[in-house]
Amino acid sequence: MSIRTYVYDNLNAEERVEILKRPRVDFTAILGTVAPIVDAVATRGDAAVREYTSKFDGVDLDAVVVRVEDLPDPILDDDVREAFDVAYENIKKFHEAQKDVADVDVETMPGVRCRRVSRPIGAVGLYVPGGTAVLPSTALMLAVPAAIAGCKSVVLATPPRKDGSVVPEVLYVAKKAGVTHILKAGGAQAVAAMGHGTETCPKVDKIFGPGNQFVTAAKMTLQNSEAMVSIDMPAGPSEVLVIADKDAHPSHVAADLLSQAEHGPDSQVVLVVTPDVNLDDICAAVARQAAALPRSDITAKALGHSYAVVVPDIAAACEFSNRYAPEHLIVNVENAESLLPSLDNAGSVFLGRYTPESVGDYASGTNHVLPTYGYSRMYSGVSLDSFVKYMTVQELTKEGLDRLGPSVARMAAVEGLEAHRQAVTLRLGIE
Amino acid sequence: MSIRTYVYDNLNAEERVEILKRPRVDFTAILGTVAPIVDAVATRGDAAVREYTSKFDGVDLDAVVVRVEDLPDPILDDDVREAFDVAYENIKKFHEAQKDVADVDVETMPGVRCRRVSRPIGAVGLYVPGGTAVLPSTALMLAVPAAIAGCKSVVLATPPRKDGSVVPEVLYVAKKAGVTHILKAGGAQAVAAMGHGTETCPKVDKIFGPGNQFVTAAKMTLQNSEAMVSIDMPAGPSEVLVIADKDAHPSHVAADLLSQAEHGPDSQVVLVVTPDVNLDDICAAVARQAAALPRSDITAKALGHSYAVVVPDIAAACEFSNRYAPEHLIVNVENAESLLPSLDNAGSVFLGRYTPESVGDYASGTNHVLPTYGYSRMYSGVSLDSFVKYMTVQELTKEGLDRLGPSVARMAAVEGLEAHRQAVTLRLGIE
Repeated sequence: MSIRTYVYDNLNAEERVEILKRPRVDFTAILGTVAPIVDAVATRGDAAVREYTSKFDGVDLDAVVVRVEDLPDPILDDDVREAFDVAYENIKKFHEAQKDVADVDVETMPGVRCRRVSRPIGAVGLYVPGGTAVLPSTALMLAVPAAIAGCKSVVLATPPRKDGSVVPEVLYVAKKAGVTHILKAGGAQAVAAMGHGTETCPKVDKIFGPGNQFVTAAKMTLQNSEAMVSIDMPAGPSEVLVIADKDAHPSHVAADLLSQAEHGPDSQVVLVVTPDVNLDDICAAVARQAAALPRSDITAKALGHSYAVVVPDIAAACEFSNRYAPEHLIVNVENAESLLPSLDNAGSVFLGRYTPESVGDYASGTNHVLPTYGYSRMYSGVSLDSFVKYMTVQELTKEGLDRLGPSVARMAAVEGLEAHRQAVTLRLGIE
Repeated sequence: MSIRTYVYDNLNAEERVEILKRPRVDFTAILGTVAPIVDAVATRGDAAVREYTSKFDGVDLDAVVVRVEDLPDPILDDDVREAFDVAYENIKKFHEAQKDVADVDVETMPGVRCRRVSRPIGAVGLYVPGGTAVLPSTALMLAVPAAIAGCKSVVLATPPRKDGSVVPEVLYVAKKAGVTHILKAGGAQAVAAMGHGTETCPKVDKIFGPGNQFVTAAKMTLQNSEAMVSIDMPAGPSEVLVIADKDAHPSHVAADLLSQAEHGPDSQVVLVVTPDVNLDDICAAVARQAAALPRSDITAKALGHSYAVVVPDIAAACEFSNRYAPEHLIVNVENAESLLPSLDNAGSVFLGRYTPESVGDYASGTNHVLPTYGYSRMYSGVSLDSFVKYMTVQELTKEGLDRLGPSVARMAAVEGLEAHRQAVTLRLGIE
């Protein structure tokens, strides 16, 4: 197996822009597909969810929504349970460290106190994909920060198994992390049910989580609608960019590339190397490992639109990565830490020889719900912040208003807003 | 002048929900109106911006975009300049206090280091409305945090004056706060030019700022398009909720209500009082002050869809406010500070007798670009955070991977992701 290879210095300006582009997604068409589904759920509630779940998932549900407290504890193998417990603890530790750190309390002038305080978002909806892989790890990544934030209603939506039950590992995580409701549905219908609320599904304020293009389109539709709901980010297909130097072990690089490629046929994998790296060794390792993978058909498709690019040096590799703005960035080079200040745009960064992407996907503690498709230029990954909002608070003493009031009155006059001015001057008794 | 008054305990369940609703905006129709404007600017760039500015603003521009460094310093009255300087310093102080505070560095397990680091968003677009009021204060609220964050390209869009020049106070602020480009345009065409970029307007990564319904619709359209741009929030008409007790001065309460009402005919003003408050006194003060306001026509329209509600006690007032989720919340009561823990949903809170909304609109230091329309349930106002994004970073030592790797490998096996597992096991040499 070989991967398409570019030598960066041989590309013209147009080609340099072209290789940064992701596999094209036609959002207009997909938005058109999900619109009637979202409308049906908004209008007909649970009945519509039930119909779509029967049609798309082949499951006839009795209850669309179940309260987690009503479900018995699932039975898991000890070693599986322990693995999830380790992940839970690390994710909890990293997200708890984010609690209240952004609160601010400043006296901007004597008598003028300004604060920024966080409050949990009341009701949140967590989308946990089913489909080609069951993803209890996504349940952890979303439910743990929701619990730390103190969100009161936590609805987890996930496609049911063929017998109508919830995947046991997902249920284990949901129970452990304090999810309140499980919505047994996937796709646009699940997103719509959370965004609009149904007879049995609480209406949520914000919807989180990765999903296929229909899930993403439904989230995008809802954030621009009268549903009054926000979303974490517009998620596209998953992607990794690996920067490797000559001492990076070819089989490690290959496994990192493949672990992204196996996510889905639309995953994109980019390898950036300096001229002294032996690309043939890496390609041979990719071929050897790929042949043995259970998801080799998916992997082959993803590798089909992936590529390697040879850049002059490590600085150029960082520049390329910043322009590509990957979801995951693996920096498998000597002194990886020293490159961090040069790295601007990435969802999550994996530094050094012993940090494969899979540790962040599961258990290092960082969140794996990350901006894709180049959106790491302006979106952050999911964090504790995603589950709270901040209010600013100001309180002036009489002396504070004495001091600040005249400036406010003057600016109000410039803007022609007389009542704004009077709200100050009447309090100061200066007219 | 009287304001419609409800006694909360006399309302039925339906009426209690009804009064929380905002004046309805038909977004579907407005999205339809802005779509061709956005498309025209995306396709034809500056030429389209020029045409719309001629058509809508009656101004024929020579240059659509000017570099701020090329413009001479505007001449302002000393007292006006000093007022803006005071505001600038306070806003700078409050937003600088937010710098790097949310960075996190945690060892979740021995040998497993996880960090969260901020990076400026590269290019940002700031929308500063013109129209019925010139708003240099909005230029301050957006440009100051952009500068502190370290954004490289800062484009400020604002409608030009009739002679094609930039409002001097806006230019003063733009120069002082390091804006790089001024786009002399307003409305959907300005938003589209920043989101898509034109021959002379840099393409931005994120668009900020309040505006009329066409500006908001253009922002919403772009965030769901292939323009690859995010927005601060979906902004609706401005609003204030005032909680007043019997010792609140009627003329102060009236001025606060009116300073919101004068923003625009679609502004909403809500007064929440306990039964011992003399509403007649407040209404009389509103009538007296309103008659003398230069913007009395706008104010009258806004008051037309505003109301007062009498609740049993202060706790009920807080509950009502949380359900309404106002943009601005003025708490003009004794011991206002003690209520803060009970307040959940508001863009910005103004505590006590000497804290009119206008101090936050201009100069206390907090940001005045805030979520309206009930969006304070899930959106924060603009802050330094709005101009950065966070990357997570993890770095494992060999020992860290030894410790964490087996859990990762087990979870990958549960999810059927074999390459994820191998990325760990190959590094550990355990197979």
